[in-house]
Amino acid sequence: MIKAAFIQFAPYLGDLNKNIVLLDKLIDKSKSADLLVLPELANSGYNFNSKEQAFQLAESINNSKFIRFLHDKCRRHDLYIVSGFNEIDNGKLYNSAVLIGPNGYIGKYRKVHLFLNEKNIFSRGNLGFPVFDIGFCKIGMLVCFDHFFPEAWRILALKGAEVICHPSNLITKFAQKTVPVHALLNRVFVITADRIGKEKELEFTGKSIIVNTVGEILYQAHEDAEEIGIIEIDPEISKDKMITPGNHILNDRIPEEYSELM
Amino acid sequence: MIKAAFIQFAPYLGDLNKNIVLLDKLIDKSKSADLLVLPELANSGYNFNSKEQAFQLAESINNSKFIRFLHDKCRRHDLYIVSGFNEIDNGKLYNSAVLIGPNGYIGKYRKVHLFLNEKNIFSRGNLGFPVFDIGFCKIGMLVCFDHFFPEAWRILALKGAEVICHPSNLITKFAQKTVPVHALLNRVFVITADRIGKEKELEFTGKSIIVNTVGEILYQAHEDAEEIGIIEIDPEISKDKMITPGNHILNDRIPEEYSELM
Repeated sequence: MIKAAFIQFAPYLGDLNKNIVLLDKLIDKSKSADLLVLPELANSGYNFNSKEQAFQLAESINNSKFIRFLHDKCRRHDLYIVSGFNEIDNGKLYNSAVLIGPNGYIGKYRKVHLFLNEKNIFSRGNLGFPVFDIGFCKIGMLVCFDHFFPEAWRILALKGAEVICHPSNLITKFAQKTVPVHALLNRVFVITADRIGKEKELEFTGKSIIVNTVGEILYQAHEDAEEIGIIEIDPEISKDKMITPGNHILNDRIPEEYSELM
Repeated sequence: MIKAAFIQFAPYLGDLNKNIVLLDKLIDKSKSADLLVLPELANSGYNFNSKEQAFQLAESINNSKFIRFLHDKCRRHDLYIVSGFNEIDNGKLYNSAVLIGPNGYIGKYRKVHLFLNEKNIFSRGNLGFPVFDIGFCKIGMLVCFDHFFPEAWRILALKGAEVICHPSNLITKFAQKTVPVHALLNRVFVITADRIGKEKELEFTGKSIIVNTVGEILYQAHEDAEEIGIIEIDPEISKDKMITPGNHILNDRIPEEYSELM
C-alpha cells in the first residue's frame, strides 16, 4: 500500500516565489504521502496576459528554481511529486508535467492535447506518453484536457502505468465524469489534482479526485477550498486486468480492427 | 427531431416463435418510434445449453424468419430497427446486430469483443465497425461488452455515426457508467437496449438507457421490468464536435502520437 495524494490550491499567476512559499507549507502538511500530485502549471499560473508573459514565467528543466525546491521537499520527506510545469526548451514552451523524487528530477510529459488559447502559447507535446517506474509503482502523466482523449489513457495502460497522475486546471466539470470511466476501462488508479480560484475570466472548479481501478472516487475535494487529499491505494491491484475469468481488458483488444483510429 | 426507442424485455431462450409473438405486441406499442433498438441475441436468447444449441437457434441473414418479421413491422410502422441477432454464415456463428428498415434488411455488425463463454461459441466479428446512413441519421452498432473498448466508439464517431445502437444482455452495471462517457467523449447519441430476466446462472440487469451527446441519460428503464423507452433526439446535434470555440473533439486528436495503440 502507498499513500497517494494531491494538493488543490490556487497558484499565483506570475509569482514563482510566492508559489514556492505557499507550497512549502502545503507539502510539509502532505509529508506522509508517498506520491503527491500538484495542479497544472503550478510554477507559473495559467491565464497569462500575453504570450510574452508565458515565456517570462517559463523555466527550463535544467535550471529551475521550482524543480530544485520540489527536489528538496522530496528528499526531506522521502516523497515523489508530479507537478504541472511551464517549461521552456529551445525557444519553445510546453505545458508539461514533471516527475521528481528523493534523488531529483526523473522525467517529464508534455501535454499533447492543448485546450483553447493554449494553442496560441504552447507547442504540442512531442514526447508521446512515457511511463516511469519509481519502484513502488509505474507512473504515467496526463495534463488536464488530455482527459478527453481515451487514446492517451489507453496507451499509458498498455505501457504498464498503474497510477496516472493528472495535473489539471479545470474550468468544466467533465473530468469528474470521464476520469473514473478511464480508470475503470483501463484498470488504473488516477490522481487528478485540480486548482481553485479565478484568473481574469477563468474560474477553476476544484473537486480534485483520487479514483480506483473500478472507477470509484475514493476521495473528492471541495469545489473552492485549498485542500490536501491523501488516501491509501495498492498499485499492485492495477496489474490484474481480468474483468471476468475470461476477459483481460487489454489482451481482449483487437488492434487489427482498429486501423481506422490512425 | 426523431423518436429514438428501445424495447427492454426477456427473450425466450430457444423459442423463436414465442419471441416473435411477444415482439409483435411490443413493437406495435412502439410504433411511434423512428429508430428502435432491441437487445442482444433477441432471436435466440443468450445462455445456450451447448454450442450445438447455439447453432440450432442461429439463422442466416438471407433466410431468417426473424428478419422477415422485423421487416414487416418496419414496413407497417415506417420504422427502422436494430436488433441483436444470432447469425450463422458459412458454418460459423456471429453475435451480430442487424439494421432493418421499411425496405428490408440494410446491414449488419458482428460483435468484435466477445464476453466470457461467448468465445467458445461465436467467431469474432470480421466486418470492422460499419456506419449506415438511413437518411435522417447515420447509425453505428455495438453489442454489449464492446462498450468496454473506447476504440470501437471512437472509430464509429470518426466514421460519422450520430446514433450508436447498442443491443445488450448486460449482467453487470458498468455500462450505465461507461456509455454516457463514451457519448460525451465522441459527441454521439447512444441507445443501449438491455434485456431482463434470468437464464440459468445469469441474471440480466435491465436499466436500458438513451444518452445524449453531452453524456446525460435522457431515459433509463427499470431494473427488472419489461419496458418501452421512447424519447425525441436531434441527431444533427452530433455533427457539432466543437466542445469549446477552439477544440474539435475529433480534429484535436493527434494520431501520430497514437501508434502505440496498434
